[in-house]
Amino acid sequence: MISVLFSHIEEKVALTKQDREKISTYFVAKKLRKKQYLLQEGDICKNLAFVAKGLLRTYNVDDKGDEHMSVFGWEGWWISDFNSFLSGEKAVFNIDAIESSDLLLISRPDYEALTLDVPVMDRYFRILYQNSLITKERRLMGSITYTAEEKYVKLAESNPQLIKRVPQNLIASYLGIAPETLSRIKKNLLRKR
Amino acid sequence: MISVLFSHIEEKVALTKQDREKISTYFVAKKLRKKQYLLQEGDICKNLAFVAKGLLRTYNVDDKGDEHMSVFGWEGWWISDFNSFLSGEKAVFNIDAIESSDLLLISRPDYEALTLDVPVMDRYFRILYQNSLITKERRLMGSITYTAEEKYVKLAESNPQLIKRVPQNLIASYLGIAPETLSRIKKNLLRKR
Repeated sequence: MISVLFSHIEEKVALTKQDREKISTYFVAKKLRKKQYLLQEGDICKNLAFVAKGLLRTYNVDDKGDEHMSVFGWEGWWISDFNSFLSGEKAVFNIDAIESSDLLLISRPDYEALTLDVPVMDRYFRILYQNSLITKERRLMGSITYTAEEKYVKLAESNPQLIKRVPQNLIASYLGIAPETLSRIKKNLLRKR
Repeated sequence: MISVLFSHIEEKVALTKQDREKISTYFVAKKLRKKQYLLQEGDICKNLAFVAKGLLRTYNVDDKGDEHMSVFGWEGWWISDFNSFLSGEKAVFNIDAIESSDLLLISRPDYEALTLDVPVMDRYFRILYQNSLITKERRLMGSITYTAEEKYVKLAESNPQLIKRVPQNLIASYLGIAPETLSRIKKNLLRKR
């Protein structure tokens, strides 16, 4: 399982054998069955989770009971309530498994210790967060400037795997549109082809 | 001017004399007069700018000509169209000076070279981006869950300097409310005291 993490890290930085040995001591494996929670709103997010296998979602629930999808994470993604993980404040997000999943967890103190013990991990996380900031910026701009159909097309282009794996109602929620609107958009797109 | 940058970096990581000497070779000083542009929408953002003195804003303009404030940056802040800077795509933001400002600029190739030459800068930027991700997450959640008055109060609590220095119409735009709404909120708050 840890080999999935190593390949993901090595896409961004080079690791020595010693680095790999050290890194592996900081992570704990965890399995989640489909629909099982990793984190519930109001709890403290104690771990940053690397998805070695499976699919999870991060979402919050409004006063009316409606779910708002925030992030999907599958093989090679990190998932957490990042604010809660770093600040120790209560989580505002829920995280659960859409598919049964294999995770590697690292605690807050171990995350700090790891970057001191294996300094190249600072570089890895710097690049990871850099990309994450870009994604967030693009999504925010997209939510302002794109129509619902454009949002779907952009998502399908940038994340074809997500469109295939994630149930339609969750994709609609992620795009901030009604499931019926998404069905209509998909029918329109098929007709245009 | 570079000493402002060093103190800011040393709030997060320790620098040796040699680190400081190396770092200083990667930056170029630039002065902006009030209202002068650092970046215009559609250009490529070639530099990451550290604000040593002054105040800038990042914003975009919609089809109707309305400005939407994205970020303010003053002493100790980094400012750029981050997506454009890293990906080389066209900038979607404008950046200009609200006050006359002293900046330190680093180019994209020099940014890469700096992190390889002075590895502790990876750690510095990792912590910087980490904080930035939290701020963005909080702002996004806040924009969904808070009323206009709550948004203003939160901003005033977390950034009293911003409330004092930035013109009222720009703060209204940053909060996504009309200037008249902001005036009404401020009057209400004064009455409550």
